[in-house]
Amino acid sequence: MNTFGRNFRCTTFGESHGKAVGVVIDGCPPGIALTEDDIQPYLDRRRPGKSPLESARQEPDRVEILSGTFEVRTTGAPIALVVRNRDVRSEDYDALRDVFRPGHADYTYQAKYGLRDHRGGGRSSGRETLARVAAGAVAVRCLAPYGVAVSGRVVAVHGATEPEAMEAEIRAARDAGDSVGGIVEVTATGCPAGLGDPVFGKLDAAIAGAMMGIGAVKGVEIGEGFGAARMLGSEMNDPIGKAGFASNHAGGILGGISTGQDIVVRIAVKPTPSIRRVQRTVDLAGEEREISVAGRHDPCIAPRIVPVAECMLALVLVDAMLEQAKYRGAPI
Amino acid sequence: MNTFGRNFRCTTFGESHGKAVGVVIDGCPPGIALTEDDIQPYLDRRRPGKSPLESARQEPDRVEILSGTFEVRTTGAPIALVVRNRDVRSEDYDALRDVFRPGHADYTYQAKYGLRDHRGGGRSSGRETLARVAAGAVAVRCLAPYGVAVSGRVVAVHGATEPEAMEAEIRAARDAGDSVGGIVEVTATGCPAGLGDPVFGKLDAAIAGAMMGIGAVKGVEIGEGFGAARMLGSEMNDPIGKAGFASNHAGGILGGISTGQDIVVRIAVKPTPSIRRVQRTVDLAGEEREISVAGRHDPCIAPRIVPVAECMLALVLVDAMLEQAKYRGAPI
Amino acid sequence: MNTFGRNFRCTTFGESHGKAVGVVIDGCPPGIALTEDDIQPYLDRRRPGKSPLESARQEPDRVEILSGTFEVRTTGAPIALVVRNRDVRSEDYDALRDVFRPGHADYTYQAKYGLRDHRGGGRSSGRETLARVAAGAVAVRCLAPYGVAVSGRVVAVHGATEPEAMEAEIRAARDAGDSVGGIVEVTATGCPAGLGDPVFGKLDAAIAGAMMGIGAVKGVEIGEGFGAARMLGSEMNDPIGKAGFASNHAGGILGGISTGQDIVVRIAVKPTPSIRRVQRTVDLAGEEREISVAGRHDPCIAPRIVPVAECMLALVLVDAMLEQAKYRGAPI
Amino acid sequence: MNTFGRNFRCTTFGESHGKAVGVVIDGCPPGIALTEDDIQPYLDRRRPGKSPLESARQEPDRVEILSGTFEVRTTGAPIALVVRNRDVRSEDYDALRDVFRPGHADYTYQAKYGLRDHRGGGRSSGRETLARVAAGAVAVRCLAPYGVAVSGRVVAVHGATEPEAMEAEIRAARDAGDSVGGIVEVTATGCPAGLGDPVFGKLDAAIAGAMMGIGAVKGVEIGEGFGAARMLGSEMNDPIGKAGFASNHAGGILGGISTGQDIVVRIAVKPTPSIRRVQRTVDLAGEEREISVAGRHDPCIAPRIVPVAECMLALVLVDAMLEQAKYRGAPI
Repeated sequence: MNTFGRNFRCTTFGESHGKAVGVVIDGCPPGIALTEDDIQPYLDRRRPGKSPLESARQEPDRVEILSGTFEVRTTGAPIALVVRNRDVRSEDYDALRDVFRPGHADYTYQAKYGLRDHRGGGRSSGRETLARVAAGAVAVRCLAPYGVAVSGRVVAVHGATEPEAMEAEIRAARDAGDSVGGIVEVTATGCPAGLGDPVFGKLDAAIAGAMMGIGAVKGVEIGEGFGAARMLGSEMNDPIGKAGFASNHAGGILGGISTGQDIVVRIAVKPTPSIRRVQRTVDLAGEEREISVAGRHDPCIAPRIVPVAECMLALVLVDAMLEQAKYRGAPI
Repeated sequence: MNTFGRNFRCTTFGESHGKAVGVVIDGCPPGIALTEDDIQPYLDRRRPGKSPLESARQEPDRVEILSGTFEVRTTGAPIALVVRNRDVRSEDYDALRDVFRPGHADYTYQAKYGLRDHRGGGRSSGRETLARVAAGAVAVRCLAPYGVAVSGRVVAVHGATEPEAMEAEIRAARDAGDSVGGIVEVTATGCPAGLGDPVFGKLDAAIAGAMMGIGAVKGVEIGEGFGAARMLGSEMNDPIGKAGFASNHAGGILGGISTGQDIVVRIAVKPTPSIRRVQRTVDLAGEEREISVAGRHDPCIAPRIVPVAECMLALVLVDAMLEQAKYRGAPI
Repeated sequence: MNTFGRNFRCTTFGESHGKAVGVVIDGCPPGIALTEDDIQPYLDRRRPGKSPLESARQEPDRVEILSGTFEVRTTGAPIALVVRNRDVRSEDYDALRDVFRPGHADYTYQAKYGLRDHRGGGRSSGRETLARVAAGAVAVRCLAPYGVAVSGRVVAVHGATEPEAMEAEIRAARDAGDSVGGIVEVTATGCPAGLGDPVFGKLDAAIAGAMMGIGAVKGVEIGEGFGAARMLGSEMNDPIGKAGFASNHAGGILGGISTGQDIVVRIAVKPTPSIRRVQRTVDLAGEEREISVAGRHDPCIAPRIVPVAECMLALVLVDAMLEQAKYRGAPI
Repeated sequence: MNTFGRNFRCTTFGESHGKAVGVVIDGCPPGIALTEDDIQPYLDRRRPGKSPLESARQEPDRVEILSGTFEVRTTGAPIALVVRNRDVRSEDYDALRDVFRPGHADYTYQAKYGLRDHRGGGRSSGRETLARVAAGAVAVRCLAPYGVAVSGRVVAVHGATEPEAMEAEIRAARDAGDSVGGIVEVTATGCPAGLGDPVFGKLDAAIAGAMMGIGAVKGVEIGEGFGAARMLGSEMNDPIGKAGFASNHAGGILGGISTGQDIVVRIAVKPTPSIRRVQRTVDLAGEEREISVAGRHDPCIAPRIVPVAECMLALVLVDAMLEQAKYRGAPI
C-alpha cells in the first residue's frame, strides 16, 4: 500500500538506488499556484550531506513536475513529481547482498516478498521519504491560504534536551561508531475546529498512523500523551471559557476531532540501525555472521525526520480539510 | 469514516442511547464456524457494571447475528451483528443537552456537525467500542487456527504498577469524584513474519492508527517505544542468530513488517473526562457554566479498554494476513 | 465487497431467507430530516406480490432506522436500516440444495466460496436489492433540495414497447412457465454540470458499474448508447448555443462529467432465470439432473428493477455531489 | 480519481501536451519477470500514426521503468512507468483555447474545475490511455502463467461488420471531414470460475465500469447483452451438463462471478468528436461560434480502442484474481 490519504491521495514510488523516487498526488484542488520552486526548499531541508553529523550522500534532489499544472496552476489532474537518483554507490552494498542488517527491514522484506533489492535498503530506505516531503510541500501550499501551518523540532536526543547537549550526544555516538535515538515534536497552528472523522477516521488516529509509518519511529503521543496516564481527570481536562479553552492538555484534539487549538504531536525515533560497531546476524543461508555497516549513515536520524514529520502532518490535515469540505463547505 | 480495515472491513453503527449498536463485517473468509456463543464472551468482558470500580450501567449486551452465516458457518457474505440498547437513562443527560463537558467530544462534534446527539455522548460514547469488540471476536476466531492470539492487561494506573496499588489509585480517584489515567499493554503471539504492507500500510502504522482511534487513548508505542529515544543503536538493534532474534526491542516489527516475534504495544489512556468534581465550561450560547458530571462513569477506563485494544489488534492482524495471502498464499 | 460509494458509502447485508436484510450508510451529511416514512414508500414500490405478474412472496418489508438520526434529523453518524424477513418458505428450496439452477449464481457461488446458502439464493437473491432501495431513498432525500430527481420506467419487454403489448408478453411467458427480458430506462433531471471524477471515477463509469451490478442486468448504455456506433460525428455531437446544448445525444455526460442536461441510462434485463420449464443441469456431485424451478418468481423482473435502478442512480449522484463539494463547495 | 483497482492499483498521470504520461502500479506481486520489452509492444499497438486512417501524431512512446524491479523481476514495490511526450504541437490548439469543442470534455472540465489545459484535451485526451495500456501490459504478464489471455477486435463500424466494409466506412467519413462510431468486442479466455466479488464488486460491474470509463464509450454489454432483453428464459439460460455449460449466453459471468467460460464483452464507441465539418458551439464568454477542428484525429477511434479495452479487461481480471487469492489461495 503505497498510497496515503483518502482525498489528497499520494502514491509514492522509487528505491534508494533505483532510477528515481517520486510521487503522484491525486485529489489536489485546482487553481493553486505551484512550481518546482515551491517544492524544492522542502527537499533541500530533508537532503543529506548538509552537516558533518549527517549522511555524506550527495544528492542534488532536484524535483521535476511532470503533470497536473497548467500555466503554473494546478488543474485538478494528478500531479506527478519525480527526483532522479544521482549519487548511487550500490557497490557499497555488495557485501550486504545476502546479509540481514540488525534493526533494518532486510529480514522482514525477505520474509514478505521472497526477494529484495538490497542496494541501500531499496524501497525501505529513508530515501523514500523524499517523495513524502515533495507531496507534503504541496499540502503546505494548500493549507497556507487558511492560515494553517506546521513546524517541528528535535526536543530530545538520548535523554538530552538542550541543543548543545543534543549535538554532543550525536557527536559522541558517531565517534563511537554507534547511533542515538531522539524525540521530535511537530505542531500545527491555525487549524479550524471540526477536522477528523469519527470513528475510524479520527484525526489523532490518522496522525498516529502517519507518524508511526515513518521509518525508525517507535512511538507517537498527542498532547500530554503518556503523561496522561499519570494524571487525574481534574488535571487533564481542559476547562472551557468564553475565550476558548484555558489549556491544551488534549493537544488540540477531542473525540478524534480538532478543537481549534494547536495540534501537538511527539514521536519517538529509534537510533539509526546502521552502525559501524560489530553486530551479530545471519545471512540468507541462515549462517551466523558478524557485520559492521559501513556506508554513509546519520548517527541520529531525528533531525532529518523533522521535515518528514511536518509533511506527514500537513498531508493528514489537508486530507481532513477536504473530507470536512464535503459536508460543511470548509474552506478548501 | 465508520469502516475499519481494507480486507476484513468492519463498519460500526449506533449511539449510546439509540436503539442499537452493531457492526457489519465484510470480507470474512467463508467456512469459519461462528455462532453468537463465540462472540458473547468478549462482550461480557467489555460490559460495564461488573465491579464497583466500573460504570453501573446494566446492559445484558446480547449479540444477534443477523446475516452472513449458514448452518453455523460463515459464507463469505457480510456478517451483521447487532446489540440492542436496554438500560438507557437519557434523562440523566438532560442537563447536558446544551453544555460541553470538558475533555469530551461534545464541543468538537458540535463544531463538526452543527448538531449532536447529547444523550450519553451519542456516537462518541465508549459504548461504540462494543461493536469493535464484537467484530474483534470474529477476528480472533479467524486467527486461532494459525496459532495467532492476542492478550492484554493494565500495566500502570496513575503511576502505580502493582495490581493492589493500581486498584487503590482507582478507588481513591472515585472517592474524590475524580478519575485517573493508565497504561494498557497488548501482545500478539504466534504471528508469522511478513505481515504489514510498506510504505503506508505498515503493520506498526496500522496498529498505531487502530489504537489511537480508541477513545481516551493519547499515546501508542511499540517495543521499546519512547524508551528507544534514550538508547544507542548497539542497544536497540536486536541481534539475529541461528535460533532467530536474540531480543525483541523492536516489539516484533521491523520496517513495518512483522518479524515473527511477539508484537508488543502499549497505549496511554487518559483519565475518564466525566468527573463529579466541578469544572468550568461553556454552553451552546457561549455562556460560562460550572458542571459536575453525574451519571454512571468508570473512574479509570483503562481496564475496560483492555478487551477493546485486544480486539483492535486482532482486527489489524487478520486484515494484514488477508492482504499477505493475496501475494504469498498465506494461511487464511 | 458489499460497500457501494466513496463518500456516501452503503454497506448492505442479509440473505433472502436469513433473519434480516439491511444497510449501513456512512457519510450521509448531517441535518437532513429523515424518518422511516421517508424510506418506506420506496420499499413498497420494490415489494413483490403487488400484482399477478409478480412473485407472490408476501413481505411487509417494514424498515427500522437503528441509528444515525436524532430528533428526526441525520447527525453525520452512520445510518443503519434493517428490514426483518417474514414470509420465508425455505422448504420450497430444499429440492435445490444440491442442484445448480441454470442462469443463477448457484454454480458460481459454490465455485467461489466452497459453500453456499441455497435458500432463496441466499446473498445472491434479488431480495438484497431491498437494502439498496432503502439506501437510495435516503440518497433521494439528500438530492431533493438541489432539484435533482430520478425516475425510471420499462421501455421494452421481449421486443414490445407499448404498455399493453409489454404486459401481454409477460403474461404469455408466465403462462408458458417461461420468463422474458426487457429494457429499463432511468433518467436524472436537475443535475448540475461538473459531476464525475476523471479518469477512473467518471460519472458514466460509475453509473455503468452501478447498473451492471444489479442482478439480471447484461447491458448498460448512456445517451445514444449502442446507437452511437452507427452514427457520424456530425450527427452525434451535441451543438452548443447561448441557450445551452441543442440536443442530448451524449445522455448528459461528456468526458465522464455531467453537462447539466438530463442523464439518460438504459439497461438490458435478462429473463428471470427461475422458470417452470424443464432445464438440464448438474448437482453438487456432478450428476446430470433435470430441473423445474417452482416457488414464487417474477416472469419478468424488469418492472421490479425500475426502483432499484433509480436508487442506484441516486446513490451515484449523491456520491458525485459530495466528491465535487470537496473541491468546489458544491451544494451538499 | 486517477486510481484503478483495489488490489492491482494503477494510478495514471499526465496530459496530452504535458511533459509525460505515466502510471504507478501498486500491488503487483513480487517475482514476475518484467522489462521495458514486455510493455513496449502494447504501446506500439496503441500508438497513432501507423496507418493513413489514424491520427498522424508521431510519438515514439518509449516506456521507461523507473522503479519496482530488481534484476529484471518485480519486487512487490510500486512500478512506475513513464513515457515522455515528444510530438507536441500545442500551437495547433491555440484557436481552441477559449472554445468548447462539441462532443468533447472541454465544457465539462471547465464547469468542474474552473480552468483547464486546453492543449490537445489535456488530461481528457485519449493519450491518457497510453498509461492504461502500459499498466495493462504488466497485468497481461501477471495473468499469462495461469493461462488467462485477452483479445479484442472491431466488430462493427457505422453498421458495417465486414473488414473491407468497415474500412470503407472509415475512409468515407474521413474524406467527408466527418467521423464514425463502431463496436469493439473483447474476450478473456482461460479465466477460472470464482472471480468477482458480490454484491458491489461483481466482475461484470467492474468490467462495465472499466469499459465505460474509456473515452468515447457509450455502451457496454456482456454475453447476449441488449439481445437478452428480447429473449425468453428458456433461451437465455445456459444448460449445464457433465462437460460443463452447453452454451455461453451469459458471457462467462453469473451472479457477478466468473463461470470459467470465456468472458465476452462488447462496447459501443461513439464517432470521434473532433471533425473538420463545421459545428456550432460557444466560447468561454458564452458567445456563439462556429468551429472546424483541425489537427490530427482518427476518423474512427474504435480500432485504437481495441488494445485499451483489452488492457482494461486484463486489469479487472488480475485485480479479481488477487482478491480471490485472499480467501481461497488462488493462483497469483
